[in-house]
Amino acid sequence: MAFKIGLLGLGTVGTGTVQILLDTNGRHPLLQGLSLHRVGVRSLSKPRQVELPETLLTTDLEEIVTDPNVDIVVELIGGLEPARSLILKAISHGKHVVTANKAVISRYADEIFTAANEKGVYVMLEAAVGGGIPVIQPLKQSLGANRIHRIMGIVNGTTNYILTRMQLEGVDFSEVLAIAQELGYAEADPTADVDGLDAADKIAILASLGFGGRIKLSEVYCEGIRNINASDISYADRLGFVIKLLAIASRDSQATAENDLLSIRVHPTLVPKAHPLASINDVYNAILIEGEPIGQVMFFGPGAGAGPTASAVVSDILNIAAVLNSPLSGEVHPLMSCTHQHYCNLAPMEDLITRFYARFITQDESGVIGKLGTCFGNHDVSIESIVQIDTHGELAEIVVVTHDVREGNFRQALDEIQSFNVVNRIPSILRVL
Amino acid sequence: MAFKIGLLGLGTVGTGTVQILLDTNGRHPLLQGLSLHRVGVRSLSKPRQVELPETLLTTDLEEIVTDPNVDIVVELIGGLEPARSLILKAISHGKHVVTANKAVISRYADEIFTAANEKGVYVMLEAAVGGGIPVIQPLKQSLGANRIHRIMGIVNGTTNYILTRMQLEGVDFSEVLAIAQELGYAEADPTADVDGLDAADKIAILASLGFGGRIKLSEVYCEGIRNINASDISYADRLGFVIKLLAIASRDSQATAENDLLSIRVHPTLVPKAHPLASINDVYNAILIEGEPIGQVMFFGPGAGAGPTASAVVSDILNIAAVLNSPLSGEVHPLMSCTHQHYCNLAPMEDLITRFYARFITQDESGVIGKLGTCFGNHDVSIESIVQIDTHGELAEIVVVTHDVREGNFRQALDEIQSFNVVNRIPSILRVL
Ligand SMILES: NC(=O)c1ccc[n+]([C@@H]2O[C@H](COP(=O)([O-])OP(=O)(O)OC[C@H]3O[C@@H](n4cnc5c(N)ncnc54)[C@H](OP(=O)(O)O)[C@@H]3O)[C@@H](O)[C@H]2O)c1
Ligand SMILES: NC(=O)c1ccc[n+]([C@@H]2O[C@H](COP(=O)([O-])OP(=O)(O)OC[C@H]3O[C@@H](n4cnc5c(N)ncnc54)[C@H](OP(=O)(O)O)[C@@H]3O)[C@@H](O)[C@H]2O)c1
Repeated sequence: MAFKIGLLGLGTVGTGTVQILLDTNGRHPLLQGLSLHRVGVRSLSKPRQVELPETLLTTDLEEIVTDPNVDIVVELIGGLEPARSLILKAISHGKHVVTANKAVISRYADEIFTAANEKGVYVMLEAAVGGGIPVIQPLKQSLGANRIHRIMGIVNGTTNYILTRMQLEGVDFSEVLAIAQELGYAEADPTADVDGLDAADKIAILASLGFGGRIKLSEVYCEGIRNINASDISYADRLGFVIKLLAIASRDSQATAENDLLSIRVHPTLVPKAHPLASINDVYNAILIEGEPIGQVMFFGPGAGAGPTASAVVSDILNIAAVLNSPLSGEVHPLMSCTHQHYCNLAPMEDLITRFYARFITQDESGVIGKLGTCFGNHDVSIESIVQIDTHGELAEIVVVTHDVREGNFRQALDEIQSFNVVNRIPSILRVL
Repeated sequence: MAFKIGLLGLGTVGTGTVQILLDTNGRHPLLQGLSLHRVGVRSLSKPRQVELPETLLTTDLEEIVTDPNVDIVVELIGGLEPARSLILKAISHGKHVVTANKAVISRYADEIFTAANEKGVYVMLEAAVGGGIPVIQPLKQSLGANRIHRIMGIVNGTTNYILTRMQLEGVDFSEVLAIAQELGYAEADPTADVDGLDAADKIAILASLGFGGRIKLSEVYCEGIRNINASDISYADRLGFVIKLLAIASRDSQATAENDLLSIRVHPTLVPKAHPLASINDVYNAILIEGEPIGQVMFFGPGAGAGPTASAVVSDILNIAAVLNSPLSGEVHPLMSCTHQHYCNLAPMEDLITRFYARFITQDESGVIGKLGTCFGNHDVSIESIVQIDTHGELAEIVVVTHDVREGNFRQALDEIQSFNVVNRIPSILRVL
């Protein structure tokens, strides 16, 4: 039996997807049972990189998601609307959905999965996180035996490219951003990437699957990389770290059986050079998952791009085709669905236990280091090292690295330190893995 | 509905598996629908790390695989017999099988999958390769859209531990082997590991899944690490490489649509330090998969151990339980089965195109380097570098690194060089990635 695909969008990922579907030789044989039924775009006159019968293209996307002949709707238009409404309408018409749209899924998972579960259809999203890297399906299936403790990743290629260049070339953020934009690695409006919003969407999705609950995106803490400068990267380097934008979801140390508290956050992080995530460079992504009893596993690969992302999209199509091929009697496949309905509780950032790196510009006077140390001690902030890195005229540059401390305590100490006469400013505060 | 598991073996992995099955809280809810029905062991009196009702244990493994109440047989006894016969008998009694036994699967995949396909049951083997790392299921499902070009991995923890220690401490093979044996990282009889046989079993399995055909294990080229010595590791280091035991399966450059030629091999390899596999150390495993359009993805994690391996075993049990829960109408799930029946053709090693590293002990005379270079040139072996690394009395030590060459040509050149009067011996010949 042939299953009919209704594709929404023929841009970067849509084109990659069509290329696979039209050239199935040597790929999974199940692909031969699929046919491309309609393709929805914004402009019919735009030149396309794939040759399709003209009759396949339409600008009427509603028609595709309601077409009784379509079995699987593949949403690759991006953005919030009309993507969200089209996905919901497809579901209400009994269609299975494949999407790469992290923005929609991270915001509307609740209504989308509720609708999908009611209708008994699948909504698959392997391409929404990590581009081509298989991570959604492993989280749903291969790691099911585990209690997940932490999911941690480099999930945004643009910022990883920028930080890698800054690291290797010793240049500042704005300079590299301009190059990245020229090379097409960063958008003209880079906000979603450099402010960590894209990574926040993705970690919310991973956390939801790993911890089996829904996540309020607005509660995810999010800090981007605009303030990272060349000197922090060079000091971090001397201390044995590289700076990476990490997206982290972990079970909070305060979590109990009754109150399942999570901590979910995106922020630049000092990563020890020997850590597996430290050597993930350029536009590559990697996701590290920790659980019991598996310990650590890491998935590494291309986090974006037409081919890799299309590989993930088509793997979702294959998974759906596999169960359509010989339908399950009654229920949906329990390892392909998302049936949890409760929202997870997220711990406030002040309760986070983490290490910190902070850089201070102070008067170059004796006793300053003692003052900082005493103040931190008064707030239960245990220090690993305080080093005067440099002096500039009358000013000294001091770098502090803490042990694991409560973020709230550290912030209180900083508030007090900021009021010291000898302290000029605190240009950088970064967390340390 | 509760599914009943018949477990064969309660050793390292069996015990880890039971620990998960008896403590399901916080893991995948589907686990709650499973019950441990019988456990087969060799000795009833042996102390066990898990508390089980005495009535569960039996030494009659035949009884378990023929028990009409058992739905899933989990084979964790290891070795060839009686494991193979028990798996076949379980299948013939209509039971699904989960196994971690790479030795049996790499040798008897043909009869086992033929029997399973006839009976319409699943044989799952995630734990057979890479311990806890999800790689079998990703190859069957998540990467299905791709044409696989190459699968390459560090799939034996013992040898990777030994090579890592040799690298870091500059000591010789035999010394580290003794330590690894003391620490329990190597068996008293280390043959299967250090001679590459275990890695050969695993790459045969991965190749079969990735390239969609059966593999004759006897045709897999296999070379272990016994001959690696401290000086090769140190020369490799100076040239920018680390030495790893790689298992590699690739589509041969001579492959055509009609003749799908593969090259499958296990051998110590000089890996450039910047390559993702170069930094996989100690007992960790990693598998790198290259395909079109995905590019490269890598899976990294613990390649052995009770917990990680049990995580993989239980993920297979979950996958089976998921489809048993709401059985497919008629056919088996096409992404969970292995239906290919033809054998792949393997290319002879002399047709391999690869780079080489070779170390020569020669008379310390002028003109030796020229002689070597000329001879290689006559055999179409293009040289990247010839360096005289050292002299010992009247002898010189010369290291040659080639470009990509045909292995057969290189071997012919070496045969000729070996007959030169000025050449004393050729202690090391290694391939370079
Ligand atoms: N690009 C990547 O590497 C990547 C990686 C991972 C995930 N994703 C996700 O994949 C999705 C698609 O990304 P993309 O890079 O392929 O986007 P893109 O290149 O901008 O393509 C978008 C496509 O959707 C069509 N479209 C957009 N709005 C439409 C509307 N209102 N009505 C009809 N057609 C509309 C466009 O039509 P026209 O062609 O006629 O303009 C275009 O074909 C996004 O959710 C993105 O986040 C992308
Ligand atoms: N260990 C790892 O880290 C690892 C990793 C990946 C894959 N694997 C694979 O997992 C499988 C199991 O390995 P393992 O390390 O768990 O082995 P193990 O510790 O040696 O345990 C073997 C178990 O099987 C039982 N057994 C063996 N032969 C038997 C027979 N003829 N009749 C009845 N019971 C028998 C033993 O019974 P008694 O307890 O009564 O002696 C023992 O409980 C092997 O195929 C291995 O290759 C292991």
